[in-house]
Amino acid sequence: MSSLTHFDAEGRAVMVDVSAKDETDRIATARGQVRMEPATLTRIMDRAVEKGDVLAIARLAGIMASKRTAELIPLCHPIPLNSVTVDLVCRPEDSLVEITATCRTKGRTGVEMEALTAVSVAALTVYDMCKAVDRGMTIGDIRLTHKSGGKSGPYENR
Amino acid sequence: MSSLTHFDAEGRAVMVDVSAKDETDRIATARGQVRMEPATLTRIMDRAVEKGDVLAIARLAGIMASKRTAELIPLCHPIPLNSVTVDLVCRPEDSLVEITATCRTKGRTGVEMEALTAVSVAALTVYDMCKAVDRGMTIGDIRLTHKSGGKSGPYENR
Amino acid sequence: MSSLTHFDAEGRAVMVDVSAKDETDRIATARGQVRMEPATLTRIMDRAVEKGDVLAIARLAGIMASKRTAELIPLCHPIPLNSVTVDLVCRPEDSLVEITATCRTKGRTGVEMEALTAVSVAALTVYDMCKAVDRGMTIGDIRLTHKSGGKSGPYENR
Amino acid sequence: MSSLTHFDAEGRAVMVDVSAKDETDRIATARGQVRMEPATLTRIMDRAVEKGDVLAIARLAGIMASKRTAELIPLCHPIPLNSVTVDLVCRPEDSLVEITATCRTKGRTGVEMEALTAVSVAALTVYDMCKAVDRGMTIGDIRLTHKSGGKSGPYENR
Amino acid sequence: MSSLTHFDAEGRAVMVDVSAKDETDRIATARGQVRMEPATLTRIMDRAVEKGDVLAIARLAGIMASKRTAELIPLCHPIPLNSVTVDLVCRPEDSLVEITATCRTKGRTGVEMEALTAVSVAALTVYDMCKAVDRGMTIGDIRLTHKSGGKSGPYENR
Amino acid sequence: MSSLTHFDAEGRAVMVDVSAKDETDRIATARGQVRMEPATLTRIMDRAVEKGDVLAIARLAGIMASKRTAELIPLCHPIPLNSVTVDLVCRPEDSLVEITATCRTKGRTGVEMEALTAVSVAALTVYDMCKAVDRGMTIGDIRLTHKSGGKSGPYENR
Repeated sequence: MSSLTHFDAEGRAVMVDVSAKDETDRIATARGQVRMEPATLTRIMDRAVEKGDVLAIARLAGIMASKRTAELIPLCHPIPLNSVTVDLVCRPEDSLVEITATCRTKGRTGVEMEALTAVSVAALTVYDMCKAVDRGMTIGDIRLTHKSGGKSGPYENR
Repeated sequence: MSSLTHFDAEGRAVMVDVSAKDETDRIATARGQVRMEPATLTRIMDRAVEKGDVLAIARLAGIMASKRTAELIPLCHPIPLNSVTVDLVCRPEDSLVEITATCRTKGRTGVEMEALTAVSVAALTVYDMCKAVDRGMTIGDIRLTHKSGGKSGPYENR
Repeated sequence: MSSLTHFDAEGRAVMVDVSAKDETDRIATARGQVRMEPATLTRIMDRAVEKGDVLAIARLAGIMASKRTAELIPLCHPIPLNSVTVDLVCRPEDSLVEITATCRTKGRTGVEMEALTAVSVAALTVYDMCKAVDRGMTIGDIRLTHKSGGKSGPYENR
Repeated sequence: MSSLTHFDAEGRAVMVDVSAKDETDRIATARGQVRMEPATLTRIMDRAVEKGDVLAIARLAGIMASKRTAELIPLCHPIPLNSVTVDLVCRPEDSLVEITATCRTKGRTGVEMEALTAVSVAALTVYDMCKAVDRGMTIGDIRLTHKSGGKSGPYENR
Repeated sequence: MSSLTHFDAEGRAVMVDVSAKDETDRIATARGQVRMEPATLTRIMDRAVEKGDVLAIARLAGIMASKRTAELIPLCHPIPLNSVTVDLVCRPEDSLVEITATCRTKGRTGVEMEALTAVSVAALTVYDMCKAVDRGMTIGDIRLTHKSGGKSGPYENR
Repeated sequence: MSSLTHFDAEGRAVMVDVSAKDETDRIATARGQVRMEPATLTRIMDRAVEKGDVLAIARLAGIMASKRTAELIPLCHPIPLNSVTVDLVCRPEDSLVEITATCRTKGRTGVEMEALTAVSVAALTVYDMCKAVDRGMTIGDIRLTHKSGGKSGPYENR
């Protein structure tokens, strides 16, 4: 039976040893969304045609945060990243911004935490930039949607 | 009509000037949750009686992340924090971990981003520590639930 | 005769004691520029009408770097910032991008290093984003242009 | 025709994918200078024979900053560095301090941003340490002078 | 005769060039201790059976600090870590907490600084958490106890 | 009976609320030492008359680390520092380098962790710079020697 890997036999937290793992090409994609008032989304969409729009700033914040994942998540391995993309799309039909982040590395551990961190910080940035007009926004549905390259095989979730 | 405050008249991003704001006692509380398989939650709850459990590590990650909010959120003001608490509660009836963070400062801007960042990073840490047994966990319902101390008056959301 | 203040009487580096200084409203503005091929500047200006342009990204990088000045400059005091603005203007007649940063705080030391750091990192970011098409760009003329609020009185340089 | 590489086809910022690039030995050298009053330079040169001199502190600040380049420059890849040197030379005939930084790695992307960041932060540190006696110093002429090891071939500038 | 390696021939600090070194599996273990009043140790030991105990928090702080060694130690190379463990054991017979950290990487330089940094920050965290009841605690005996994998051969100290 | 303050009533870690504490002038001094082979100390002392000596670099590393204390120590409050000094003295009679750090702030919590962190990182830096010639060095006797300005009254330890 598999168990929580971040603990040793006596229940103490460890950064697990990945020395024996192969250096393979690893990709992970994560998704999430920020729900808001329709009027807030309209503002973002209106802004999006100008310089310095909300989505561009949140995209950058997500990319930069992915590089600092190992500083934020206590037992996460520090790994170089070969590629990071963060996309934010306005979905007026659902009154939300949808965020997708994909990270890629050649390394011994997966990059799902980097992708999830990019999505989370991009979402927080959208909140920060719109909170003056809409304090009731909700960040949600943050999840791993794709993972490949590790020993555990590819993972696909919608 | 109020507008997005993080841009100047020409649409350029700025860290807004808070010099004219009063230094007041400001508190913010945020909430969120991590949904997972019942078996995953059971593992966390079983661990919780030992040393080094998932919830204690996620709590610490959330507290530490709140101190670095201004590094992560591009236009967020750096502010000292007088207090941070992060609580994680297992809700087996809903098969989720509920996270609540409260931050407090005496300053010129609110601390809602600090509380939301604490919740987000605590949630990411729960994901990281359990992902070997449950890749389908979803982080969601991250929102501001309480805010007081600023010019805009108190805010309460459930 | 005044001397270099970051050393004690025996020539050892110190972070100087500012305890006795007043907390006053302090503002500093710095300027700099990135010289480049006319064709490179044209690209930036063409981009500037789209989402995600070079100038918006450099502006954000400058703002974010100003918050981390005390981590980069060894003997600089950590201080909160009440406001940061970074502007980048294309000057096709001189084939350069001109960068201006203004920082403001209420504190015991000036914010000229924060403004100069914002200009420097914004300039480095312009370089990074255009280096694939123009490796010969030069960053220069970085200087303090305005300072007010300290005991030494206001400073104005063009 | 080559274009700005840090954007995708729709103009959105990305950290470009370097997975397909070879891991080669890469070296980059950058230069810059700090112009100042002759009297300020004299002080630095007098200090330079004692412990804790300005140039030694600026050298260290430059080396340390090069390690954090990917945190400062939004779309820069995080890469390990195999070697960093920063030299500062007083040029009394021109009343300036000349700064040269060389970085080396074995990786998939060049290290010119690391070298340019080292020069910039070393220059800012010289400014910080001398600003009490000379607020009119100017940082300038920061440029790439050598690059080798990438697919685009060696680059030499002066 | 060997000399201090972090300086060039003219006595200037450098991050030494490790390009020519082999990428080998490298392990280092460091030890240290925090001496305290017996009553303080008793408190820690009593806590240790509950959630959120001192030792678990210090362990996490040590692991996280090891990842940031290159930011703290000026001339240390940034390297990825494949594994980090930090153990804290109460020794009531000596009235102290003993700390042991082991780091592992596959790289061109050793990880002794990472292990020593983990021990030091874990010790500082024990101090921080107990200082309200015992300001006279002493951190000491921090040393390298094992090192293997480099050109200089294995090292063993007790 | 006083208890460990970093836990709430249920044993969960918190960053304690200091809102009710007065902003007072607070000073703390910490000490520590690095024991080494006499030949190693001789090298340091010989170097100390040149540019870029070990002690100057360790001093700078200690000052810079004190500014990042709240990032390293999980439950430490982020506070501005008004002054930091770090001194390193060679004691050939005991074959060690003695390190003393003093920090000062005007704030709601003490700065003993900042002083202890400065000493620890300065000691680690001495180790790093001399480890090629002496792997058996020991860092020890790190302790608080003076504290004033808080509600608990002044503290003096040798």
